Amino acid sequence: MKLPAPLLELLSTTFGPHGCFTDEAERIAYAYDNSRRNAMPDAVVFAQDHAQIETLIQACREHHVPVIARGRGTNTTGATVPVDGGVVVSFERMNRILRIDPDNRLAVVEPGVLNGDLQRELAPHGFFWPPDPTSSPWCSIGGNLACNSAGPRTVKYGSPRENTLGLRAVAGTGEGFRCGTYTSKGATGYDLTRLLIGSEGTLALITEATLKLTPKPSGLRTLRATYRNVSSAAHAVARIMAQPVTPCALEFIDDVALKLAHDHGGENVPLTGAMLMIEVDGEPDTLASAVDAVSRAAQGEGLEELRVAQTSEETQALWSARKALSPAQRTISPNKINEDVVVPVNRLPDLVEGIRRLSKKHDVLIVTFGHAGNGNLHVNLLPRDDAERERAHACLAEVFALVISLEGTLSGEHGIGLVKREFMPLALQASTLGLMRNVKAAFDPDGILNPGKLLP
Amino acid sequence: MKLPAPLLELLSTTFGPHGCFTDEAERIAYAYDNSRRNAMPDAVVFAQDHAQIETLIQACREHHVPVIARGRGTNTTGATVPVDGGVVVSFERMNRILRIDPDNRLAVVEPGVLNGDLQRELAPHGFFWPPDPTSSPWCSIGGNLACNSAGPRTVKYGSPRENTLGLRAVAGTGEGFRCGTYTSKGATGYDLTRLLIGSEGTLALITEATLKLTPKPSGLRTLRATYRNVSSAAHAVARIMAQPVTPCALEFIDDVALKLAHDHGGENVPLTGAMLMIEVDGEPDTLASAVDAVSRAAQGEGLEELRVAQTSEETQALWSARKALSPAQRTISPNKINEDVVVPVNRLPDLVEGIRRLSKKHDVLIVTFGHAGNGNLHVNLLPRDDAERERAHACLAEVFALVISLEGTLSGEHGIGLVKREFMPLALQASTLGLMRNVKAAFDPDGILNPGKLLP
Repeated sequence: MKLPAPLLELLSTTFGPHGCFTDEAERIAYAYDNSRRNAMPDAVVFAQDHAQIETLIQACREHHVPVIARGRGTNTTGATVPVDGGVVVSFERMNRILRIDPDNRLAVVEPGVLNGDLQRELAPHGFFWPPDPTSSPWCSIGGNLACNSAGPRTVKYGSPRENTLGLRAVAGTGEGFRCGTYTSKGATGYDLTRLLIGSEGTLALITEATLKLTPKPSGLRTLRATYRNVSSAAHAVARIMAQPVTPCALEFIDDVALKLAHDHGGENVPLTGAMLMIEVDGEPDTLASAVDAVSRAAQGEGLEELRVAQTSEETQALWSARKALSPAQRTISPNKINEDVVVPVNRLPDLVEGIRRLSKKHDVLIVTFGHAGNGNLHVNLLPRDDAERERAHACLAEVFALVISLEGTLSGEHGIGLVKREFMPLALQASTLGLMRNVKAAFDPDGILNPGKLLP
Repeated sequence: MKLPAPLLELLSTTFGPHGCFTDEAERIAYAYDNSRRNAMPDAVVFAQDHAQIETLIQACREHHVPVIARGRGTNTTGATVPVDGGVVVSFERMNRILRIDPDNRLAVVEPGVLNGDLQRELAPHGFFWPPDPTSSPWCSIGGNLACNSAGPRTVKYGSPRENTLGLRAVAGTGEGFRCGTYTSKGATGYDLTRLLIGSEGTLALITEATLKLTPKPSGLRTLRATYRNVSSAAHAVARIMAQPVTPCALEFIDDVALKLAHDHGGENVPLTGAMLMIEVDGEPDTLASAVDAVSRAAQGEGLEELRVAQTSEETQALWSARKALSPAQRTISPNKINEDVVVPVNRLPDLVEGIRRLSKKHDVLIVTFGHAGNGNLHVNLLPRDDAERERAHACLAEVFALVISLEGTLSGEHGIGLVKREFMPLALQASTLGLMRNVKAAFDPDGILNPGKLLP
């Protein structure tokens, strides 16, 4: 597509010579994201304020040109790939922390603020914002909100939907609006805040967010439990979540992942059937009893060893396996298929057994690890060549069918984007999808916001 | 309105002779709610399953007849009053707990289950569902979800929007659908679950809810702090919320309310400037340090006395003032105007001072108490005759303007219903209201669900 001249002129006026680009080199840099899919945008603009976004969307609506919002492109689903061309609007320069308000346990930020930068600014006030994707040093709050991205701490503290009070945004109609509150409670009309969170830029573009802060507990203890096999570890997860002390991280790593991490520089990684990394937090004088409660629940059939880190060096060592995993996977398969299915916690044993069976059936290497406390596992298929890639795709469809049969769903924290869109009818009834389409039309009647994503 | 004969026949067939009524005596009983507004419905039906609701809405849509869902009518905003006539559908007989699943920290219930009944069934499993309106023994879960009703525990555990995983419902189109998950995490499409919560039966009728359960801490300690005046108590609330130990209740009672409670049977109620009731919960060995932390924050300018209950009898005695309040208010004014405004916690001193000023200016008795930890105060205007009633309404408009000027909002937990509808443009921009109307049309294109509520 070639953009109409009046639109190009308006973009150039609105965003200025250093904020609007149409040359190929710039466009290529914004054509792809961490999904490794790519498609060329027709222009890239860099937003600096809310008013520019209103102008942008109104103009693009008039010319029927797609608008694709982009944080830092760390998502794995292709959610920011401009499949139908159009204008990519990057929020990376709209990155001011507008207010940190510890008295009211809130912060107001622009969407381009990096998650890690915000956490660093909050720390001296004794607060944090719970969502903690692995990419937190280089992913943006706007992206976290767009995808409802979470991380290990979600098991205790919730996802962006539980940690956001209000938003300012511009709908696909081109109209700016505010929703939500500056208060920790509100029952004034429909909850548009949560509706926008996880909508992947298909309903409105977020220009400001009021985030709910949580006091940062001053104490943390790390435990590592190894098990004879994946099944006994999965059963331990269910026991831990059925007792009252909720850990602030409860991570599962299967034997295939452990071996991979061990073979790729993780010499301290135990070679065992499965491993749990468990963290509990709280005020220092409450930690001992919390560690006891979680340890009791971790014990049971198949436990091989339970270690509690006594120093920060030991904590680092315990986490080394988990950290070594991502780079290790890349060495095997540059085209890994990275899923994040989720099932009710007590169905985890069935899920890990089922995945093992499918891995054998389709002869595809599958590594399974992740946020077990939420029943949310990263199921990574690692095809090494074209033949394996074909088998991996057949296997993936069966993984999703398995997850749905266990009362689970397609994604816990990555979202749908481009790559899981076709599987949505597996997880949602036609009537639910129909209502989602109606909601899309209510915000974006001409379908210009991030077309080709989320809804099949 | 007289209902069309074919519709009446269908209702009678669908709901049976004991589930469909058109005689005046039955209709009168379903004409009003706790708002004391009333309007006659043309028929009352008692639902027992999801399929009946689909049939009902499809038929009413065909005949353009309003459908008004009703739990137990305990709301204070007129949300269940059938202002345009039509069919009231009561969920009181659709009251089965379908599943209690402690392993996955969830329960599946029909909407007519009473909040208190659910809590009682959950207790032996060691869990509870956090939302706890004062009416919990006789209000329904469906009503709690429709109004996003909360209570004292919200300050620590959140409202229905933070404690619901998924829903089954029937939209105004007549189509049944499921949304949300059985898992504690999900990023599969738009969040319709939260959108329905707090929508007061204007988008869809909920027929089943999957609730997120929380482990019930086994220990609880109650504190009572009295202060020289409302301002010093309000400042103490802000101090308590700015430190890391979050109480599970933080209730404020002003001097007018204390005197009222004292004069009406509460002989143990202290006559002082203002009072805070504070509760902390946790495992028993963590309580002492939590009580210490909260006590330190409660201390400061204007504190008169801080008591910690040592026995359950003492706890009962400390709560006696709060319990005596509601009956006491009724003796003064059967027409009390019952608001539940909310402001950021550190604006509470400005709010209570401002209300005091408005009470004097308009010469209307105002009692202020409530969930101070969320900045959510019940501002009850108590007019004793017609002249005072008129002054009270003028005063109310200024109370709302004050709240908005303090970055607050109209309602923390009661919702909008009929009585606060006209004030919505104070709290929300025209563009936000416009999007809410679009969302309404997306779910209920013919506007048959609870007309005349929530949106102005």
